[in-house]
Amino acid sequence: MESRRGLSPIFECVPNFSEGRDLEIVVALEKSISAVPGALVLHRTSDSDHNRSVITFAGSEDAVVEAAVRAAAAARDLIDLTVQRGVHPRLGALDVLPFVPLEGAVLADCVVLAHRAGERIWSELGIPVYYYQAAALRPDRTRLEDVRRGQFEGLREQVLSDVSKAPDVGGPALHPTAGAVIVGARKILIAYNITLKTSDLAIANAIARAIRASSGGMQEVKALGLPLESRGLVQVSMNLTDFEQTPIHVVFGEVARLAALHGVEIEESEVIGLLPRRAVNMAFAHWLKLPSFEAGNVIETRLEQLSRSRT
Amino acid sequence: MESRRGLSPIFECVPNFSEGRDLEIVVALEKSISAVPGALVLHRTSDSDHNRSVITFAGSEDAVVEAAVRAAAAARDLIDLTVQRGVHPRLGALDVLPFVPLEGAVLADCVVLAHRAGERIWSELGIPVYYYQAAALRPDRTRLEDVRRGQFEGLREQVLSDVSKAPDVGGPALHPTAGAVIVGARKILIAYNITLKTSDLAIANAIARAIRASSGGMQEVKALGLPLESRGLVQVSMNLTDFEQTPIHVVFGEVARLAALHGVEIEESEVIGLLPRRAVNMAFAHWLKLPSFEAGNVIETRLEQLSRSRT
Repeated sequence: MESRRGLSPIFECVPNFSEGRDLEIVVALEKSISAVPGALVLHRTSDSDHNRSVITFAGSEDAVVEAAVRAAAAARDLIDLTVQRGVHPRLGALDVLPFVPLEGAVLADCVVLAHRAGERIWSELGIPVYYYQAAALRPDRTRLEDVRRGQFEGLREQVLSDVSKAPDVGGPALHPTAGAVIVGARKILIAYNITLKTSDLAIANAIARAIRASSGGMQEVKALGLPLESRGLVQVSMNLTDFEQTPIHVVFGEVARLAALHGVEIEESEVIGLLPRRAVNMAFAHWLKLPSFEAGNVIETRLEQLSRSRT
Repeated sequence: MESRRGLSPIFECVPNFSEGRDLEIVVALEKSISAVPGALVLHRTSDSDHNRSVITFAGSEDAVVEAAVRAAAAARDLIDLTVQRGVHPRLGALDVLPFVPLEGAVLADCVVLAHRAGERIWSELGIPVYYYQAAALRPDRTRLEDVRRGQFEGLREQVLSDVSKAPDVGGPALHPTAGAVIVGARKILIAYNITLKTSDLAIANAIARAIRASSGGMQEVKALGLPLESRGLVQVSMNLTDFEQTPIHVVFGEVARLAALHGVEIEESEVIGLLPRRAVNMAFAHWLKLPSFEAGNVIETRLEQLSRSRT
């Protein structure tokens, strides 16, 4: 894989595990990743209602593939879907495994990594694999929801009788306790919530409906209204699936505009997990009306670029 | 010097040289810096009217002091103040030498480095030294303008008769062709210009007067109005000398507000040279109403922190 700037491309990988209650297991899953030289764990979050954990890590192509395979092995050994219960749908112990391009990498690179990891997860671990999003081999498997329909309990039966449900790699029978892994490639995703100074959920719902792509709003935006019971406020909860096409500052501006039409102000907003630096720089350039602001205008970025070019 | 985060502190150094016309000399000055292992040149700018060049570099404490001394030596050998002419006042071939704290460093560290560099510039190179700003040894030498009053031509006479004009290190006679170096320590400075959609210089002047600290405006802001002849517009040209006390987004907001009172919009703005990442992050958090946004919320920053903590 060629770097686009003379540096090794860096990839992010965001495994979703079907365990969010037993912290010992979650820590063991994280250790299976961080034990791989060059795999850096950036973030970890668990939800006990969902009974699900998401670990974000990054590294070179070899490090992320190796760590992804080891994470799948650890999940197979530690999570038993025949007894696992939670409100979040799941098909596998390691349920979803997206590869994401970071510095010097593009989406096509991630498709290659997803397929490489998928082959190994079947051949080395005996867990069948479905491919989704940019890594999908069939158009009807692009959307994660479509691949996962029926979940573990439904699909383990269907694959035995319906050949159209067979995994892309391995199977057709699912792994008896670990199910199947849904491996994919996608652009970076920003999970972003805006809290409104109102307790009226209808307003958050109306704004979510107005901005989300699926109802004709802004491209690459998923949104829903949520009540924040403990604070007596409501929130527009969003996923921005292409922040370069629909930037975070544009979303903020539009939500603020729509809220004002309802006579409501924005209380605050929050980024869940991490966001790419380019999203910050794009917002900065926009608000200050800087026509030519780039990462290289930042002292620390220049220092890092120079340090790396010397090593 | 102790790091505040387990990492080596990084310092910036911004030598101002009294040569901005002969590019060969400027390149030689830059090479005297970049030849020092660990000294990274971030930025260079020359002005022929001013006959002056500013080179911004960074590195560990040892690297920046070594590079600063070598830059003083190169300037002594390549610049002759007895023949140098320009509109910008100057006392030395290497005229001003401020040390600035970057990551993991504080201003007090820079005072130590300034004094260490100053001792060597006299003992090894025979150029006397004045200390200014945070490195000043006398209250009447805090301001650069006060130290440089009389310039090379005036001070080389005064030091011989007026003991109160004597350098802080070495002398009292100035170096016959290289004058003296004014060495200091200061916080990072953001050079920032806002262009207005008007050709009326009186409006830019009025806004500059309203915002600058010296006329009771915002703390740590220097500002003046300038005409941009080629574009038929005017500009508020500023130095922000403590961006944490008076952030760049606050300055932008106040200039926009004052311009609107004159019925004028902001055309665009520009950062001259480099600015610290924290200034970008502070603006991002402000505009998006993010109560807890930190550098660690950015993927690339997390990656760098983790990479460095492993090496």
